[in-house]
Amino acid sequence: MNRTIDWDGGAVVIIDQTLLPGEEKLLRLREVGELAEAIRSLRVRGAPALGVAGALGIAMAVRRAQEKGTDIKMAAGEASRELVATRPTAVNLRWGIDQACGAVGAGADAVVERAVALLEADVSTNRVIAERGAAWVEALRSACGRRLRILTHCNTGALACVEIGTALGVIQLAHARGAVEEVLATETRPLLQGSRLTAWELQRLGIAFRLVADSAAPSLIARGYVDAVMVGADRIATNGDVANKIGTYSLALAARRAQIPFAVVAPESTRDPQAASGQQILIEERPEDEVLGFAGVRVAPIGAHAFNPAFDVTPIDLITAIISEDRIIESGT
Amino acid sequence: MNRTIDWDGGAVVIIDQTLLPGEEKLLRLREVGELAEAIRSLRVRGAPALGVAGALGIAMAVRRAQEKGTDIKMAAGEASRELVATRPTAVNLRWGIDQACGAVGAGADAVVERAVALLEADVSTNRVIAERGAAWVEALRSACGRRLRILTHCNTGALACVEIGTALGVIQLAHARGAVEEVLATETRPLLQGSRLTAWELQRLGIAFRLVADSAAPSLIARGYVDAVMVGADRIATNGDVANKIGTYSLALAARRAQIPFAVVAPESTRDPQAASGQQILIEERPEDEVLGFAGVRVAPIGAHAFNPAFDVTPIDLITAIISEDRIIESGT
Repeated sequence: MNRTIDWDGGAVVIIDQTLLPGEEKLLRLREVGELAEAIRSLRVRGAPALGVAGALGIAMAVRRAQEKGTDIKMAAGEASRELVATRPTAVNLRWGIDQACGAVGAGADAVVERAVALLEADVSTNRVIAERGAAWVEALRSACGRRLRILTHCNTGALACVEIGTALGVIQLAHARGAVEEVLATETRPLLQGSRLTAWELQRLGIAFRLVADSAAPSLIARGYVDAVMVGADRIATNGDVANKIGTYSLALAARRAQIPFAVVAPESTRDPQAASGQQILIEERPEDEVLGFAGVRVAPIGAHAFNPAFDVTPIDLITAIISEDRIIESGT
Repeated sequence: MNRTIDWDGGAVVIIDQTLLPGEEKLLRLREVGELAEAIRSLRVRGAPALGVAGALGIAMAVRRAQEKGTDIKMAAGEASRELVATRPTAVNLRWGIDQACGAVGAGADAVVERAVALLEADVSTNRVIAERGAAWVEALRSACGRRLRILTHCNTGALACVEIGTALGVIQLAHARGAVEEVLATETRPLLQGSRLTAWELQRLGIAFRLVADSAAPSLIARGYVDAVMVGADRIATNGDVANKIGTYSLALAARRAQIPFAVVAPESTRDPQAASGQQILIEERPEDEVLGFAGVRVAPIGAHAFNPAFDVTPIDLITAIISEDRIIESGT
């Protein structure tokens, strides 16, 4: 499989995720505006991939400025504002942008080098996370005495990152080590990243899985079909509250009631030092049309309105473990 | 608006709900097989409407037998088996069938009379439920000191019954009395009864509403956007556990954590004396395709599987009130 996002001689190359699983199309983006559109339209999405996209976007902007002989600081500043505005809740996006902008004083080549280093770091970081997480899953498997049925939400696989996923990277490695029996994957309304992307990845990985409606997951947890829930994170507050794809909170509520572990898998860059708790995290609202229909098929009557928050906040007291490249923070069930 | 289901000179007339909100088409069914197909395909759905459909189906069967001069008892027995098999979890369906079959000994006309009486009783029962429920909402409104924002799930309106809904019937009357500010309606995957049917009804009733993804509802409850949750029921065990549309359980979990009331509105006929608790309730599994696509558009990759339970069970300890035509059972928050 190609990388989800890559740098190729001054251009950003992405897989257009809005076309999956039907079509695998690579997009070669050469202007910041094209990348901003791709981020806004979720052609590239997933917290870690967005961090890389932000950094590569700045790299592209300074490269273009260098080619035209215009001011690279100004180009970086403009690109930064344009890219941040595409997904205001995505802390990784801003983090990647800031990282690349921090090298502007050292010239265009330094910015590109910094951005490419972040790209490679995503791969190596997620490899460490996968190792740490797989060990955690294997310990749980030993405690349960049989292979595990793991429920996951949205897409946290390679398609959310560069080459290796976060929560799905853990599941992939744990599966390779014989610790996973089945994955239950939520479809993840409104944009169906589970049905489109996670299913596509699981199928390629040869991992047994079934898709479930988001609203079915809590009751399947209650009925004993799930041994652990593993999700990613879009932003983690300093107290440990986790903002993640809408629907995460209900899985945590159900896991707590059923006394099964609820684990969050995310790189340290997902931490937001500005947010003391989940209450300080701005919840992005996306277009109403996403809820009123899907893929151009309108379902609700004309004139109907929707309320479409993209994320929810799961309070730390409902989280069993937060697994990163540096540590596992466990709060016990 | 036409009745959702009606009896017209030996035929059952229904609105084809699979075509809403785009098209309002009445179907005139004259054979039990046609009605069974309509029930299986959810052209007519909703617990109370299914009770009526079951009774009218038996009425139709004996009328046909009478016309052909064949045995009406045998016709009723065959129709009963065919209709029960369409939706095995729907206790009201079986109840309606049994009620009509109970009159077979008195002849075909008695069966028809009994079935039509059930049809009319649904209207009068739901009128009583709406009065009782609206008073409950008005009391809550007084306690809150302002008009309420009520979240509802699936469709429990006139389209689930004959002429007046259950939970939505309560909301309608409470709204007419000035106690309701806004309704948040879940889209209700996989078949989107909320987006298609509840939205259509709310719009006709002039009640302000917004649709939300099912998975968004728990977090909106947590964030303070909801004053009460009101849902219907497909089956109620003798201990008070409620089987209802998949997704109900997560709303109850969220309501409990947020300390807002979670009310179930359903006629006494929804009670299942055979089920001591929710554990005795068989959960119907519906076709995988419902989850693998959206509104007829395939989403998941070819070869992917789904797990599609139609209902979940909400344990009585999470339920604040069960409102029926006879009583309100409150367990306190």
